[in-house]
Amino acid sequence: MEIYFDNSATTRVLDSVRDIVVKTMTEDYANPSSRHCKGAQAEQYIRAARTAIAKTLRVPEKEILFTSGGSESNNMALIGGALANQRAGKHIITTAIEHASVYNPLLFLEELGFEVTFLPVDHDGHISLEELERVVRPDTILVSVMYVNNEVGAIEPIEEISRVIKSQNPRTLLHVDAIQAYGKFQIRPKKQGIDLMSVSGHKIHGPKGVGFLYINSGVKIRPLIYGGGQQNNLRSGTENVPGVAGLGIAAQEMYTDHEEKIRRLIELKDTMIDRVRELDGVVVNSKKGYESAPQIVSVSFSGVRSEVLLHALEERGIYVSSGSACSSHHVGVSSTLKGIGLPADLQEATLRFSFGLFNTKEEIDICIDALREILPVLRRYRRK
Amino acid sequence: MEIYFDNSATTRVLDSVRDIVVKTMTEDYANPSSRHCKGAQAEQYIRAARTAIAKTLRVPEKEILFTSGGSESNNMALIGGALANQRAGKHIITTAIEHASVYNPLLFLEELGFEVTFLPVDHDGHISLEELERVVRPDTILVSVMYVNNEVGAIEPIEEISRVIKSQNPRTLLHVDAIQAYGKFQIRPKKQGIDLMSVSGHKIHGPKGVGFLYINSGVKIRPLIYGGGQQNNLRSGTENVPGVAGLGIAAQEMYTDHEEKIRRLIELKDTMIDRVRELDGVVVNSKKGYESAPQIVSVSFSGVRSEVLLHALEERGIYVSSGSACSSHHVGVSSTLKGIGLPADLQEATLRFSFGLFNTKEEIDICIDALREILPVLRRYRRK
Repeated sequence: MEIYFDNSATTRVLDSVRDIVVKTMTEDYANPSSRHCKGAQAEQYIRAARTAIAKTLRVPEKEILFTSGGSESNNMALIGGALANQRAGKHIITTAIEHASVYNPLLFLEELGFEVTFLPVDHDGHISLEELERVVRPDTILVSVMYVNNEVGAIEPIEEISRVIKSQNPRTLLHVDAIQAYGKFQIRPKKQGIDLMSVSGHKIHGPKGVGFLYINSGVKIRPLIYGGGQQNNLRSGTENVPGVAGLGIAAQEMYTDHEEKIRRLIELKDTMIDRVRELDGVVVNSKKGYESAPQIVSVSFSGVRSEVLLHALEERGIYVSSGSACSSHHVGVSSTLKGIGLPADLQEATLRFSFGLFNTKEEIDICIDALREILPVLRRYRRK
Repeated sequence: MEIYFDNSATTRVLDSVRDIVVKTMTEDYANPSSRHCKGAQAEQYIRAARTAIAKTLRVPEKEILFTSGGSESNNMALIGGALANQRAGKHIITTAIEHASVYNPLLFLEELGFEVTFLPVDHDGHISLEELERVVRPDTILVSVMYVNNEVGAIEPIEEISRVIKSQNPRTLLHVDAIQAYGKFQIRPKKQGIDLMSVSGHKIHGPKGVGFLYINSGVKIRPLIYGGGQQNNLRSGTENVPGVAGLGIAAQEMYTDHEEKIRRLIELKDTMIDRVRELDGVVVNSKKGYESAPQIVSVSFSGVRSEVLLHALEERGIYVSSGSACSSHHVGVSSTLKGIGLPADLQEATLRFSFGLFNTKEEIDICIDALREILPVLRRYRRK
């Protein structure tokens, strides 16, 4: 038996995704830039994926740029956005709990002479809109805020954030890292005032190695990768047809019967939260219902080291995450848990349970039973 | 019937590649950065691919960096190499017949204040070693030369080029775009004096959206994509496990019975060259045997527009390329054909036939028969 509760790290692809990946690798495998009809056929898969994705966001198709994944999307938004707009200023704002693929490109931009302001978050993982209003300046070219925090599931109020920014400086761009949000929320970039938005395929039961960047057509941005001029000169390189086609199918699937899918995820989340609270010495860092991401439950188990608990669960075929699992070999304490003010001892005692379309309530029951058995044993050993 | 002679644009994946892609998307689908055993299992696919590829080049495994493809590899080598070494100088040398994914990053570097020297090529597509010797300076940090030209198949003398460069300036790095060469040649970076080398998966019957950059361990280079610190901090982002695993299998397969595979490709090429020469008004821009790439035959058909001939062949299910097919929507004359001094009228009358593991001699016979029928008709219409 295998219970995979690590869907915020990555997901199993849908059967329909697998099928289109296989078809485009073995039958319709041409290069979209080839001028024969097999090339046109390959391009048709790219176009269909673009159409499907644009529809989920209610944006024009030309505003979707395919990338190699969430990290490239974030890097392109930040580095490409900053380089293209540096004449207007060199100030950038972000939060203290961003993913490393936002944080580290910003450190690179600091090296290039850009100035970055990091906003703290409160216990709920939210930035202060008053503070944001104060720090937006005439030379602020970019604000980068994640939609959903990958470790605890906190949701940032994107629309309000955009309003505050634009009221202070209408030219300041808002980039949203929506890697944990896309597929889980009805996102409307136009309505919410989002200029740039990063999405990853493998978090929504699509393929790894593919993602997209939403780019509002009025936004100036520079490429990260130069070459043959694919995708309107913004992202060169032979299009990853199987990846893009798979991403299109996954996006379409996530937004089919979307409310029902989200209701199911929230039921799983709420069940997990209710049931884990039955146990002793437990602090839940995520909220029930629609107040936090539907797929993420962060739980601190006092007196237990997360790594030890993770391995005890894995021995029973239950796969969860300590930390965010998106930072490679980066042992150490998460900036989010610290950012929301979790006591140091609990930071190192925290697991993330994250759900996907394939999970069931029965799996949660099994997981809770396992925790009920394991926790006292681990705590007893620790006391010795 | 379908005859696919456009393998230098892209290839159909091997069945073994398809199988491992499916397995890693649906069973062993975890994130290599996850700390549970499913994560370790996913990481094992990355490690196996790295081992397989390193073996084909006789280099240490740590010198292989996975990327999203050939264009990213070229961009990272050039931009990442230039930024990391700019204290030693800002002069770069390349040739007049490079792929757009080398040429355009160099234009970007020119904007940043780097100086780029473009060397012309002779009728065979070769740069002059004497001229190279003359232009390498104390502040030359990088020379970028393609191993095999993608349009005519000309082979550059990499080892001699490296020797000339290093004799003038031992600190100058040699980057080789081996996108059309890897899988077709026994490449030995250590022996040939290659510091950086770009490879793409989908040119060798591997997946699209994946490639690698060989980086000699002594070479300083900056990342293009920052984030979670995957791959020794050099290329962040969740590893594309299915892509990388598929690339590993394709590399391994290409170098199994390698001499026999190349002998077969050369037989196809030589047959194509011999037979196409039976036709009237034909100029072959590629050489027979081991003197040019085994998979590429460039042919100019006087008095015929390449686009028209391409579509006439496609009507019979024969897929070939005009231009390199790696530049998107880039109608216009190839820089290679111009570079080798082909007369202007022939430049626009040139097709590229490129072979892969799935092609047969019978397909060439059918193609020649088709050309024999089509050419007189097209020429007659043109004369009117």
